[in-house]
Amino acid sequence: MTDNQDLGITESKEYNTGEWYAEVVQKAGLANYAPEGMSGFIVTRPRGYALWEAVQSYLDEKFKATEVQNAYFPLFIPESYLEREKDIVEGFDPEVAWVTHGGHNELEERLAVRPTSESIIAPYMSQWVRSHRDLPLRVNQWASVVRWEATDTKPFFRTKEFLWQEGHTAHADKEDAWEETMLRLDQYESAYEDLLAIPVLRGQKPDHDKFPGADTTTTVEALMPDGKSVQGATSHHLGTSFAEAFDITYSDEDEEDRNAHTTSWGFSWRSIGALIMTHSDDQGLVLPPTVAPTQVVVVPIWQEENQEKVLDYAGSVADDLENAGIRVELDDRDERNPGFKFNEHELNGVPVRLEIGPNEVDDEEVTVVHRPDGESTVEARAEIAETVESHFDEVYAKLYAAAEENVEENVRDAFARSEILGTIGQHGGYVRAPWCGEEACETEIKDQISAEIVMVPFPDDEEKQLDLDDHDECAICGESSEETAYFAKSY
Amino acid sequence: MTDNQDLGITESKEYNTGEWYAEVVQKAGLANYAPEGMSGFIVTRPRGYALWEAVQSYLDEKFKATEVQNAYFPLFIPESYLEREKDIVEGFDPEVAWVTHGGHNELEERLAVRPTSESIIAPYMSQWVRSHRDLPLRVNQWASVVRWEATDTKPFFRTKEFLWQEGHTAHADKEDAWEETMLRLDQYESAYEDLLAIPVLRGQKPDHDKFPGADTTTTVEALMPDGKSVQGATSHHLGTSFAEAFDITYSDEDEEDRNAHTTSWGFSWRSIGALIMTHSDDQGLVLPPTVAPTQVVVVPIWQEENQEKVLDYAGSVADDLENAGIRVELDDRDERNPGFKFNEHELNGVPVRLEIGPNEVDDEEVTVVHRPDGESTVEARAEIAETVESHFDEVYAKLYAAAEENVEENVRDAFARSEILGTIGQHGGYVRAPWCGEEACETEIKDQISAEIVMVPFPDDEEKQLDLDDHDECAICGESSEETAYFAKSY
Repeated sequence: MTDNQDLGITESKEYNTGEWYAEVVQKAGLANYAPEGMSGFIVTRPRGYALWEAVQSYLDEKFKATEVQNAYFPLFIPESYLEREKDIVEGFDPEVAWVTHGGHNELEERLAVRPTSESIIAPYMSQWVRSHRDLPLRVNQWASVVRWEATDTKPFFRTKEFLWQEGHTAHADKEDAWEETMLRLDQYESAYEDLLAIPVLRGQKPDHDKFPGADTTTTVEALMPDGKSVQGATSHHLGTSFAEAFDITYSDEDEEDRNAHTTSWGFSWRSIGALIMTHSDDQGLVLPPTVAPTQVVVVPIWQEENQEKVLDYAGSVADDLENAGIRVELDDRDERNPGFKFNEHELNGVPVRLEIGPNEVDDEEVTVVHRPDGESTVEARAEIAETVESHFDEVYAKLYAAAEENVEENVRDAFARSEILGTIGQHGGYVRAPWCGEEACETEIKDQISAEIVMVPFPDDEEKQLDLDDHDECAICGESSEETAYFAKSY
Repeated sequence: MTDNQDLGITESKEYNTGEWYAEVVQKAGLANYAPEGMSGFIVTRPRGYALWEAVQSYLDEKFKATEVQNAYFPLFIPESYLEREKDIVEGFDPEVAWVTHGGHNELEERLAVRPTSESIIAPYMSQWVRSHRDLPLRVNQWASVVRWEATDTKPFFRTKEFLWQEGHTAHADKEDAWEETMLRLDQYESAYEDLLAIPVLRGQKPDHDKFPGADTTTTVEALMPDGKSVQGATSHHLGTSFAEAFDITYSDEDEEDRNAHTTSWGFSWRSIGALIMTHSDDQGLVLPPTVAPTQVVVVPIWQEENQEKVLDYAGSVADDLENAGIRVELDDRDERNPGFKFNEHELNGVPVRLEIGPNEVDDEEVTVVHRPDGESTVEARAEIAETVESHFDEVYAKLYAAAEENVEENVRDAFARSEILGTIGQHGGYVRAPWCGEEACETEIKDQISAEIVMVPFPDDEEKQLDLDDHDECAICGESSEETAYFAKSY
């Protein structure tokens, strides 16, 4: 692709966000659209898949350090299994891809391509759990799932097939299950804040928007620069509904039979969409060094008379970085000029660039340039690996600070219907409002401006709550307010 | 499962191999069968999946060190794409699971659940490859595939859905593509011999048994203790057939348009089946320490009067091992006696056991016991991690030697039809015979004893060849012999 790669991003992030996003995804080589007949699917290219591998590696280590074991369950689920939990069948019925034929034969029972795996995992939990000593039971799988939603494709954000992990656990009682639900939410928050440089807001979904069958759905929400919220990941406290439907019971210490309490929790490649959308700009992809496949590129700048010494010096710098475990690329291509290389590596989201010309060689220095702001400093050649690592930290901090500022400036309060509509209409972002708890009030807002309640803070999270003593009426219907709702437009 | 796990393997590996294998897989907690309506599918439990993770990690590192990048392609392939390479459609037609409905709507074109991904990857290679500078192009994906074969299920060996990696590459010419084909075969050989302790024989498949569309299919074959061969992994030189069908062309240095040459290569969880089958015994699972999820178990043996000092000492040994990066479990359960624990860890395939009683504590020693042969030695407590590592090497060497002896003793020569039939009938294993190259001659053997040609040595691999100057007649038809064929019964 080097020959005819078009390096210019032509769309504007600010004025034409959707088209800009699609252009960055394609030109930075993250993904392509699937062929005709498969709208809604994408092909994830190596630079995009490497981002998912970084997420996998981060979360997988956290899971394993907290007693989760990986497993693999079948891709298909018999229709009769999907139907055993009534909320699941109602929740996913219109979105399932069905396998009806194997080879030349029609199947006796059609098989769903898994939209999520509770219905195939729960029956095995039922087999594996006998005694309280078998609890807690925790399994996770990294897999792809299919949900046949008929909407416009947006790579990583909205695709019919997507990659994710789904964790499934069983516990002796409600408290343990709730603790598990929150532990996984903590880990998801950490993946966003400590790996992807994206601050998130934690809370729970309104009852009418929970995962089918769940007692509580908890969520981390990320605010995109265009003012829309992304549901970053969800962790569900399932109560005993799946245990009852699939007979997950255990004998307690007094040999009494009891229902287990289960949880499930999932983190998908939507996080990659949020990553691209949050940090990138009109020059292309921007990535934090934590996940960038190439963290630093060394670009030697030479004329014929100093070519050898510049290339030798640049090569030794790159070697030092590689030996320190840094993901470095030495771009010594002869057929491209430095300006072209700078543009290409900016498009591809390389966080730090080292420029090395004859002056740097003579002075035993390197010039260090940050993506995205172009800040440039001259640093000593000695201890270059430590120096570059500290620039990685600086770049990470800049990206995080910009995203954090976006959230902090875009949470506004409203106490009347017109205020909610006006504020979201004008500014986007989150609007906090007192809410009675009825879906009908959300529907009124949704019908007018497609904003919804993306999150309700946890009861003990006082910082995020409005003072309902002062604001005891639902902003929409005027009935008694029960909680603080965060309204936003949503991906 | 601890409460009611039945630790005894009741079937005999020697006399009832199939039932013994199924019992080990289930009792050692590697896999369960899928529910009714989904015969042919399995549920891979954590102890089984950990083995696959060990294989993934080993091969993924080798691939990345040799310029392979991971990517992810859609789970489904439109029927019209499968049909573009005629050999692929003929080769896989009876084995494809078809998605016909998305939600409540029938699809305009039905979608195959991928049986292998050449037909969806090649069109993208066509887009990504323009110039000779874009070559070689190498992508790999870790994924599951579905082949709707109507045969008895055998976990890991024969399942309708299986996990694998599939690598796909494009090259400028035939030589480069052939070098790639052999590089991947080398890596597969290494995974068997250096990770799984299974020696393999390398060679190529007869023309009539190649991958659909391939020029050459290369294979590594492993001999199981029951005398049957397992096709361990295959690496295909595809020539230009996919490049022609999907228009993968590039402009060479003279700006002439040329067809690329492609390869594909896959390693599946069948390797886990071969691992279990090769090393395990009538006490259960046997694993080399390289892949064992628990490499060493520390079993303290105490009476009430010395409980504290034995447990402290055992705990400190386990800590030392863990700090050295060894996967260790301290089994200090109070409710189980040492004999039960020994049996359980033997069933689960823990390669090394450390026994620690009051004598070991007083003498500052540990007793080290090997799985599978029970060899026991007393070692000093000091530098325990290095000591245990060297026992891992010994256990690995024992397992490899036993498997190697099985192969070496079971390659026999035959120069007549009756000899082939008699030798395989009596001994199993491989029979080398001069062969004319015609499928009809293999069919004669296949029809009589279900043995087939599993491998033909590479032309330059003289050690594996018969001297065809001395044996110039096909053992079956008596026509001129062209090559040396390895006949065997096969999984």
